[in-house]
Amino acid sequence: MSYQSHYFQEVRKAQQRAYVPYSHFKVGAYLKTKDGRHFYGANVENAAYPATICAERSSLVAAISEGYRPGDFESITVTVDAEHPSSPCGTCRQVLKELCDDDMPVYMTNHKGEMIKSTVAELLPHGFSGKDLE
Amino acid sequence: MSYQSHYFQEVRKAQQRAYVPYSHFKVGAYLKTKDGRHFYGANVENAAYPATICAERSSLVAAISEGYRPGDFESITVTVDAEHPSSPCGTCRQVLKELCDDDMPVYMTNHKGEMIKSTVAELLPHGFSGKDLE
Amino acid sequence: MSYQSHYFQEVRKAQQRAYVPYSHFKVGAYLKTKDGRHFYGANVENAAYPATICAERSSLVAAISEGYRPGDFESITVTVDAEHPSSPCGTCRQVLKELCDDDMPVYMTNHKGEMIKSTVAELLPHGFSGKDLE
Amino acid sequence: MSYQSHYFQEVRKAQQRAYVPYSHFKVGAYLKTKDGRHFYGANVENAAYPATICAERSSLVAAISEGYRPGDFESITVTVDAEHPSSPCGTCRQVLKELCDDDMPVYMTNHKGEMIKSTVAELLPHGFSGKDLE
Repeated sequence: MSYQSHYFQEVRKAQQRAYVPYSHFKVGAYLKTKDGRHFYGANVENAAYPATICAERSSLVAAISEGYRPGDFESITVTVDAEHPSSPCGTCRQVLKELCDDDMPVYMTNHKGEMIKSTVAELLPHGFSGKDLE
Repeated sequence: MSYQSHYFQEVRKAQQRAYVPYSHFKVGAYLKTKDGRHFYGANVENAAYPATICAERSSLVAAISEGYRPGDFESITVTVDAEHPSSPCGTCRQVLKELCDDDMPVYMTNHKGEMIKSTVAELLPHGFSGKDLE
Repeated sequence: MSYQSHYFQEVRKAQQRAYVPYSHFKVGAYLKTKDGRHFYGANVENAAYPATICAERSSLVAAISEGYRPGDFESITVTVDAEHPSSPCGTCRQVLKELCDDDMPVYMTNHKGEMIKSTVAELLPHGFSGKDLE
Repeated sequence: MSYQSHYFQEVRKAQQRAYVPYSHFKVGAYLKTKDGRHFYGANVENAAYPATICAERSSLVAAISEGYRPGDFESITVTVDAEHPSSPCGTCRQVLKELCDDDMPVYMTNHKGEMIKSTVAELLPHGFSGKDLE
């Protein structure tokens, strides 16, 4: 199933929940599961910057903590207020790689309603995974 | 409000949702909000170890992503299967410091039902916070 | 300047310094600066997996701490003991993006002496950077 | 061996190497080894905040990458420009716990030359370690 117009409204709602006292850069994520549920994600910053958690990962760990398993996800939509639709950081790509199908769509949007579609595998070419540890 | 016996049942439920293909060390978290709701947290590992997110932080970012704000939390209970009740890692303590009251109880438990009570401030003495950045 | 045969010997030396009591998966990095110096990097694990730091980042922060600045780097070589030359994790790609030229070579090798060449930009398409925060 | 006056000069030198385009908050670290060598550390920020690495950890992974092992360290001195001597973040405390003796001194200083002494164990009470994983 492809991008739905209401994904944009939903991800903008998630974005408002961002806790960003340091960067003032709000990011939202909207994760759809294959069985039709969804999880919101917002970035949660920290005075110690490395302890910050991004919106994409917030939504993914919320889902796992509710019982979803790797492979249960259908798409993720991300949004920012920026000139160009912003993409997941490297750490989030690594977590998407671990928990989502390689061909799962990643929809990147911004406040102007622009949208770029990519996939988990495209965003992490030569991706490092559990197979590399064997 | 202090530790309730059903917190233990709840946190053990969260623990079962851990995704731990690398360490096989399941951790669960059970976060109570001051207005009576709760959020589960499970640790979510990654082939690239640094991209792992702990149970405590999973529950906290799930709550923020649902609209809760720093200071809205009443207690967190953590559980592991280990000889001694295991405590939050340093990164989780830093996130607790950012999002929770200093005197918020942190209940550390294990599979034997042992429990140690601490607080956010006790776990991060001389804690680094947003005030240090000013 | 392109890949030199002695890079492989050097990166294998760095790899031996890995501190990996949890994964037993040793990774080495060898970072060349444009002015002809080099920095070794080894992965440094932690019982709390998220506090682990990878070999690539170890070499980069060592260089910055010695006074090197973003853009001062010529290439990085990485090595693992694995069937296929393993690639940097997402977090390391994000750090490479911040500190290195987009076309800087990333040489991925393994114990069999196999080598795959990529670049910083190829490994993080649509890369998130400081420009996105403006 | 206790705090030496030249540690302060050295750690202020390390601090100048910080790469902090986002917070403009420079942190320096100066790590002494038991065999008389030292390593500098500076914080290295990233547009994606979670990919930031702190000064304390920069110095520690530089040392490990040069062949030092856990337990080889004598003291660490940290410095900031702030009203009060600032302390290591939770993630750094976790890394100190993994790589340093529990009673290793941690000297926290600021630009005014104020100094507070603590230890690795004091900064991470009930510290999580490899023993908890067994």
